[in-house]
Formats: sequence, structure tokens, C-alpha cells
Amino acid sequence: MENFLSNIQSPADLRKLKTENLTKLAKELRDFIIDIVATKEGHLGASLGVIELTIALHYIFNTPQDKLIWDVGHQAYGHKILTGRKDIFETNRQFGGISGFPKREESEFDNFGTGHSSTSISAILGMAIASQLKGDLKRNHIAVIGDASIASGMAFEGLNHLGVTNANVLVILNDNAIGIDPSVGALKKYLTNVKKGTAKDENIFECLNLNYTGPIDGHDLELLLVELERLKTIKGPKLLHVITTKGKGLQKAEENQVVFHAPGKFNKETGERIQKSNKVQAPKYQDVFGHTLVELAQRNKKIVGITPAMPTGSSLKYMMEKIPERAFDVGIAEQHAVTLAAGMATEGLVPFCNIYSTFLQRAYDQVIHDVALQNLPVIFCLDRAGIVGQDGPTHHGVFDLAYLRCIPNISIFSPMNEIELRNIMFTAQQGLDGPIAIRYPRGRGVTMDWEQPFSKIEIGKSKEIKKGNKVAFLTLGHIGNQVIELIATIKNPENLGHIDMRFLKPIDTEQLTSVFKNYEHVITLENGSEIGGLGSAVIEFANQKNYTGTIKVFAIEDIFIPHGTTEELKKICKIDINSIQNYLADIL
Amino acid sequence: MENFLSNIQSPADLRKLKTENLTKLAKELRDFIIDIVATKEGHLGASLGVIELTIALHYIFNTPQDKLIWDVGHQAYGHKILTGRKDIFETNRQFGGISGFPKREESEFDNFGTGHSSTSISAILGMAIASQLKGDLKRNHIAVIGDASIASGMAFEGLNHLGVTNANVLVILNDNAIGIDPSVGALKKYLTNVKKGTAKDENIFECLNLNYTGPIDGHDLELLLVELERLKTIKGPKLLHVITTKGKGLQKAEENQVVFHAPGKFNKETGERIQKSNKVQAPKYQDVFGHTLVELAQRNKKIVGITPAMPTGSSLKYMMEKIPERAFDVGIAEQHAVTLAAGMATEGLVPFCNIYSTFLQRAYDQVIHDVALQNLPVIFCLDRAGIVGQDGPTHHGVFDLAYLRCIPNISIFSPMNEIELRNIMFTAQQGLDGPIAIRYPRGRGVTMDWEQPFSKIEIGKSKEIKKGNKVAFLTLGHIGNQVIELIATIKNPENLGHIDMRFLKPIDTEQLTSVFKNYEHVITLENGSEIGGLGSAVIEFANQKNYTGTIKVFAIEDIFIPHGTTEELKKICKIDINSIQNYLADIL
Repeated sequence: MENFLSNIQSPADLRKLKTENLTKLAKELRDFIIDIVATKEGHLGASLGVIELTIALHYIFNTPQDKLIWDVGHQAYGHKILTGRKDIFETNRQFGGISGFPKREESEFDNFGTGHSSTSISAILGMAIASQLKGDLKRNHIAVIGDASIASGMAFEGLNHLGVTNANVLVILNDNAIGIDPSVGALKKYLTNVKKGTAKDENIFECLNLNYTGPIDGHDLELLLVELERLKTIKGPKLLHVITTKGKGLQKAEENQVVFHAPGKFNKETGERIQKSNKVQAPKYQDVFGHTLVELAQRNKKIVGITPAMPTGSSLKYMMEKIPERAFDVGIAEQHAVTLAAGMATEGLVPFCNIYSTFLQRAYDQVIHDVALQNLPVIFCLDRAGIVGQDGPTHHGVFDLAYLRCIPNISIFSPMNEIELRNIMFTAQQGLDGPIAIRYPRGRGVTMDWEQPFSKIEIGKSKEIKKGNKVAFLTLGHIGNQVIELIATIKNPENLGHIDMRFLKPIDTEQLTSVFKNYEHVITLENGSEIGGLGSAVIEFANQKNYTGTIKVFAIEDIFIPHGTTEELKKICKIDINSIQNYLADIL
Repeated sequence: MENFLSNIQSPADLRKLKTENLTKLAKELRDFIIDIVATKEGHLGASLGVIELTIALHYIFNTPQDKLIWDVGHQAYGHKILTGRKDIFETNRQFGGISGFPKREESEFDNFGTGHSSTSISAILGMAIASQLKGDLKRNHIAVIGDASIASGMAFEGLNHLGVTNANVLVILNDNAIGIDPSVGALKKYLTNVKKGTAKDENIFECLNLNYTGPIDGHDLELLLVELERLKTIKGPKLLHVITTKGKGLQKAEENQVVFHAPGKFNKETGERIQKSNKVQAPKYQDVFGHTLVELAQRNKKIVGITPAMPTGSSLKYMMEKIPERAFDVGIAEQHAVTLAAGMATEGLVPFCNIYSTFLQRAYDQVIHDVALQNLPVIFCLDRAGIVGQDGPTHHGVFDLAYLRCIPNISIFSPMNEIELRNIMFTAQQGLDGPIAIRYPRGRGVTMDWEQPFSKIEIGKSKEIKKGNKVAFLTLGHIGNQVIELIATIKNPENLGHIDMRFLKPIDTEQLTSVFKNYEHVITLENGSEIGGLGSAVIEFANQKNYTGTIKVFAIEDIFIPHGTTEELKKICKIDINSIQNYLADIL
């Protein structure tokens, strides 16, 4: 039987196919993705849901001359495969391989990098306006955006501008009622009514002056072709509302959409997930957060939990299950999440606002203006801080130390292990004078027996792990365990000291003063940007104190870090054990 | 004739008045504001527009038990006067006086600090949820938000959450069709249709599941009282749409709403603005930007200009008048503004994206993710960088150096004078490898004869203003003029050197290496946060180079800076000439 997919090196090949063969192609494309993701891992559900749409778009529109942006790019696997990357698709998300998201330098078909959500409307409008200014009124500009992403404020800003232009933009609302977790909010409720036919005559997109079509079945290829062909002839801003099923075509993925967002390895025939070894492992930091929050909230009725669209990823889901009235998923709305927390804090509630480090960048102004300036005791829990691995540069949480340290009033803490995370959460909920940011990495900690009784942590105090007299390691957070490991390999480690700084801010100046007195060499280690973080803070204080010893900073250099495993990337950034050992050998 | 206002020390006094006297009170309140702002200066138009609404709200609702938030607080003068601050209102915006915005520490009636826009819905929802959790289902929660502010993404995020709660929140949409400049966007167009009665049955707020009332005349006190009384009895989320006139009650202010947003001194009877002395002054930096952009854009057809709602404040208005097809006011939508610019840059346009330093905080993620990561040559012009004066802590642009320096790929430049600003704009539009941020302060430069022919600035190169041999001043931006002034007062300044660093990033390491070789003392001076800025960068590099001289950093210490004149605040921050002179005396 003919295999269509194997003959497609680019959309030009696709366009040679007869329309009646596209359904077969859709099946092949779906199977191809399932086949590879089953063993190589990656995001699955989102791309399976847009197979027909992907084919239809490249079939009808003249990409790459026509511009196409996939919002939150993990729906773009089919797009990548049809645009020349079929043969290297198995390198997806691996170090040196293709990115899991659209990436401009990877292909002329990837018109805009999209790892964070809700950027596509603004970007495509910029391109469409450029087209107009060049006098090209024929070029088409398409943004595909999910119902979770379009509910974010930034997307609304884009629509609000788009609606008063005559730019040649087609927004395709890919409505599957789910982001990573199920969508929330009034807009979602509204879209549900539209789908059920129970909405009134109102149409929110027409209110914003867009030409609206829909809703239509996003898996009906024939219908998609007809509608896209028709919309191609209509100039100006328009919106096509398509209904799709996340995980379409793999029964398990359709049934359990949250898990199959990124399922890990699975059996491609049955969809059964392949369990990892039963080896007992230390817990994920996110789960320590999630379970500890429930434990604390059961005792302290003032505690509330907030997540912007990451109940599963942050493990706030445990609190949402057990204490739903005090746990809030606000959707992809980081700005709202932070100021909501600020409002709650003014009334004496104790908000734990859990946001991935990279996504807190979306709410930077709110952290400064609504929380820190008013000195409100909001507790930020920043998950995925530092290098995160295969999601790559859009997801590494490496700037938080620098962008938070310059803000007055805020404390910044990073736990070296599970116990410290629990204890700082315990400490913070007892009441602080102002806000605190607790940052911890993606992945697992180091402690099996982590559910210990709570004890209080003194704000601004570091912890001496090991005394020494020549070289002092100053570490921040989980990465400090590397120094413990390193010291264990050294025969006579008497001259090596190690201090877990715990707080980047307020930094323990008493401890630093003592270090400057007692050590000739200082080595700082952190999982964050070398500009503005722990190393900077130590050097700044050393300058004040006229410290004459050497200070060596191990941190992430001033470049964007690619994707790969965390271990691979630590080597690239020279913050792995080996790099430190080499330096140590030189000064010892 | 009875004066009602003089007897009102708090809303409790207001509530003792008969309703028929409130119109008289409104007149008194309006006159009181005009009287004081005419001589003491401040924001005028916004507060005049909500006089009736302010009275009605405090009359009907039980403030401060009921919670009331004024979005973008410069509409809150009437509120301040009715809530115990009548007698100190003449200290408005002065150092040590009351703030021009609501401020929590100032009054129990100021439930939330609001200097940036669009935060009120999120904050009031946080308070309303707190109320529910405490079991208080009777308390009322009101947010008053303008039509320009509600069009910002963050406000949409708040509405999207609010609509699926049963929180007891009343959003009052104060629709006057203008922010500082006239409102823009599809939502504005929609609201205009609603007002004209030409909208279809659609109602965008009902789409978001809010109980909608309106539009009603916001200057009809009787009607306001009736509607607010009625809405008080309706539980759950609701929105009241009121139509007001900015500047209401002062003819000149109604006629010229942009100018009378903050008119400076004026004749309280006629409304005529009092012209400042005719002394020839150096231009405002914003005007150098605005005129130079027109000059460049007339030659370079790829140049586009973007402002989020600040055509007047940024002086992009000049380009909007002369080249409207390439100049874009996108409304209060900083996130969209940045990613729109990124999209335009992918197509070879040369976007100048002008955003106040403090407001770029709203688009921090977009700067990192959409611009810097993709290394797109967007030219950011950051106006109001550094201390801004009377607008106070919400408006000082003091964090930008720190929060931008940690981002890879971006250049950061600060001009010492008008000529440098022009030349860097000239240089940037010729094409750079990546993005650049050009930051300059509020207010005037130092050069009368500023319209000089352009010359190119080498990226990453500093400029030696004066040679020396003992003490080197390293300065960034306009504040460097203080050092010129200071050196001019010194009799034998041979040993004092002065370098205008120009670029914070890439920093001129060649120059720094030479400085470390030739000077015993280094003094850095910048108008920004001491954490993470120029001082930090110099100290970090000195650490790498094992510099053994002293480095003293003059920068803004790690606190939020209050409001006052720029001169007063520089003293507070110890970055005034005197502070530097004192230090210099110690080391010379």
C-alpha cells in the first residue's frame, strides 16, 4: 500500500496529493508521531489533536511564503514532520537534535519561536503589518492558538489591536477545552456554551470586530479544506473556531488527556505507559511542595494556593483535590495570579503562589508593584528554577535570581533538599514581614525519608555544612549537593569548607564576613545566571569588605542554553562536578 | 451659604447629608480640587471626571468595611479628600506629603496601591474571595476601572476569573474614551457602539458571565445612587458601565483632555495654563526621541514606531502625526507591544518600541522570550528611566539596568546627552545584530544646539571625557553630567578621570582594564538600582581582573524610593553631587 508520508519532504510535495488521499496521510502522520514519541518521549496529545488542521493548513496555504505561527509550539510536531524534519524527528528534544518547539533557526517554516503561550497573535499581526507596509496585500498570516492560551491577557491585547486593523490575519482557535490541565475561566465557559448552542446571539469575537466562523469539527478534513479555502479569499482579520480532541487517534490519550500531554515512554499499540523501574527514589520537589502544602493548609486555615494553569505540573492538584475551596487554578494568567495573591494577602490570607520560574517573568511588574512595594507577605514557590532539560531555552528558569534580587523587600530562598523546602514553607506560613520567593528545581531531591517534623528556619541565615580553612564553597539550593558529592571524593578535605547559603536575600553577611576572614579562596555555585545572582552578591559584598582572596563564580554564563538532558547542559554551562574539580585542582 | 465639604472628615460625615445636598457637595469638591491643583500641580482630568461617582460610592457603600479600589489611582483625588485627607491635600505629590495615588500606609480607605493600570480587578477579587473564606457574604467589593485600563490583558485575566466565581464584586467601568491619550482598540470601538446604541445584542461582559448594567450617565448623581443601591443587593460578580467626561466641570479641561490630564499650574477661573518662563532650555529627552525618530523614519522606510498608550508622554505623537501608517499606539498593552515589534522585526522592519522603564516590567517575559532569545533587532527606547520625581515609587524606572543586564544578546545603552541619544538611534536603525535598550530619563537634557548631524556610535565602546591618574569616575547616562559639574568646581582636577561608559552591556572591558591599571580609586555613578547595574558590572569584572584598588558605587540603594522632586530624591538616595563630593574629599 502506498505510503504518502514517506514522499513528503516539504509542503510542496503535500500539495501534489489529491484531496482524497489526505485522510490516509493523516493516519500515517498520526502513526509516525505515536511511533516515535512512544520510545523517544515528548509532548503527544497536543500534536495528535491538530493532525488534520496541520495538513489542511499546509495544503491550502502557500507556506512558507504565507506565514504560520503555532502558539505554544508543542502542537507543532506534525508541522515539523511535514516541513522537512521527518528524518530527524527522532532527535526531537535531544541535545543537538531538533527543538520540541518551533524555532526560527531550525526552519524557514518556523516563523516564530513559541515556547511560552499566547504570543502568536501579536507576532503574526506584526508580520501582517509588515506585509501591508511592503505593499503585499495577498500574503496570508495564520496563528493557531488553543482555548487555554487565548484566555491569557496577552492574547486579548493582540485581539484588541487586531480588531481595529485591516491586516490579513486568520486566527484559528483550536478549542479542545484543555491546556495541560483542563481549561478554566469565563471564556472557557462561554466557548462551551457556543459549542452546545446554548450561547445567546452574542459573539465575543464579533464584539472585538473579528470576522467569526465556527465552531467546526477540526477533525473533518474535507470541511477544514473548504473553510480554509473560503477564508483565504476574505481579507482582513478573521477567526475560525475549530473543535478538536486532544490526543485524537490514540484511545488512552483521548481518555487521559492530562497524563498524555507528555506521557513518557508508552506502548504504541495499546497506549499503556511503560513504568519506570521500581527503584525507590527521592521525591520530586514539586510533590514535596504539593503534599507539604496540604499538610500545612489542613492546620492553617488562612493558607490558600494559587497556580496559573499548572495544577499537575506544580502538584497543587493535591490541595485542589483535598481543599478545593482554598486552591485556585486561574488559567494561563500569571499577572492575575500574582495580584490576586496580593489582594488576598491584604486580607490576612496566606497565599502560596506557585509559578514556574520562567513563567514568573510574565508577572514581573506585579511582583514589584503589587507585592514587594506594598510589602505583602505573598509566598512565591518557583518551580522549575535553573536548567530544566529538554524543554530548552524557553523553559530554563535561570534569570529569577537576578531579576528578583534587585527588588526591595523580597526574601529569596533556595532549599538544598526536601527538608529545607518543607521547613521554609512551614516558616513562611507562620507569617513573614514581607514577600518571599522559594525557588527549587525540576526533578527529584536527595532525601528518601523526607516527611520529617517541621522546624523553623531563621530568615537570612545560612548553614555551615562543613568547616574548612582554605577554600570555601558557597552554594545556593539543590546544586549544593554536588559539593557534598565532590568533597566526598577528596582524600584530605580538611581545608575545604562548605556553606549552604540558603538565602540569596537577605544574604548572610555575618557568615560572609567570617568566610572572608578565614578562607583564601571562595567558590560560589548556583543554578542560575552568572550575572546578578549569588556570585554577584558575594563579589559585591567582598568589594565592600576589601576581601583580598580569590572568588570564582560557577553559574550559567551569559548565553541562552539549548535543550538536552540536565546533565548534558550542566557540562555545557560548566557547572558540573568535573568543571569544579578541575578548578579546585588548580588552586589546591 | 452652607459649605458641606468643610464638615466632612470621613465618609461617615458624608452619609449624614441629605441626598439633595450632594450635587452642591459635588460642586464644592470639584472647586476644591481645581483650586489646589491649579497652584500645586498634579493630575486633574481623571479626578474631575469621577466626582459624582466618588460621592455616590462612599455615600452608598460602607467604606472602609466595604472595599474600594481605584484603578490607576490618579482618579482618586476626590476619594482622598472625602476620606480624611482634605487638610493635607495641598501636600499632594510633594516630598513628605501625600501620594498622588492610593497608598495603603496612608489610609485605611486606600485598600490597594494603584499606580500602574489594570490591577484593580485581580486585587479586589482576592479581597472578595478572602471575604467568602471568612464567611462574610455581605461585604461589598468595588473596583473602578477606566476603559483604557480594562483593555489591558491583565484586566481581562481578572474578568475571566471573576466571571466563574460567585464573589461579591462590582466592577465599575468608568468609560470616558480616554486614558492619558484617547483610547484605542477593538474594545473601545465596541464600547462606542454600545454608547451609540449601534451594538448588536451582543454584550461582551455578559459573554464573560458578568451581570451587566449600563451604560448610564456617570455625572447624574441621582441615577448613580439608585443604581448603586440596587446593585448592592445583587450578589455575585457584576459590572456597571458609566459614561463620564474627563475634566468635567472645567471647560478648558473638557476641551483639551490630553493636556489637562496633568496640566501644570493654571488659572483656576479661566483654566488658562500658566506658561513657564520663556528662558531657552535644553529639550526634553522625550522630544529629542520624538523628533529624531521622525527625521530618521523619513529617510528609512523600514522604521516603525510603537507606543503602549503613551503617544504624548513618549513624544511618538510627532511620528503619529507625520507618518501615521508607520506609528502605532496599541493601548495599555506592553506585552503585545513588544511581541508585535518582534514580529515586525522578523520581516525586516526596524521597530522603535518606546516604553517607560517602569512599564517595561509588564513585558519582561516578551523581551526575554520573543526578542532576546530570537536575537531580533528590536530597538527599545526606555523613557522615564531612573528617578522620575512626584509620581513616586510606582513610576521610578530604577530596576531596568538590573533586569535587562542578565538577559543574553541585548545591548544596553544610556546617552549622557541629546547628541548621544540621537546618534545611538541613528546607529541602531542602520541595523544591529540583536536588540538594544536605550534608556534615558524624564526631563530635560543639557544641550541647546542638539540637532547636529548624525554620527555612528561603536557598540560596546565607552568615551573618555577627561583623563586622570588617581580617581576614575565611571558614569552611565545623563547623570554623568553631575561629574562634569563636580570636576568643574575642583581647583586641581588633574588626578580625576571621567569615562562616560555609554554601554552597560556589552561593557567596555578594554577601557575597564585600562582604568584598573591606571587608577587607585574607581567611583561608579548611575541612576538605577545598586543591585545588578553598572556598579555590579564593574565590580564583577574587577574581581576577574584581581583589581586591588577601591571601588565605590553610587547608585540607588535597595529600598523603594518615595515621591518628591528629582533633586530631593537624589539626595535621599545619596547620588547627588554633594554626596560624591564628600566621598571624594575622604579619598583625595
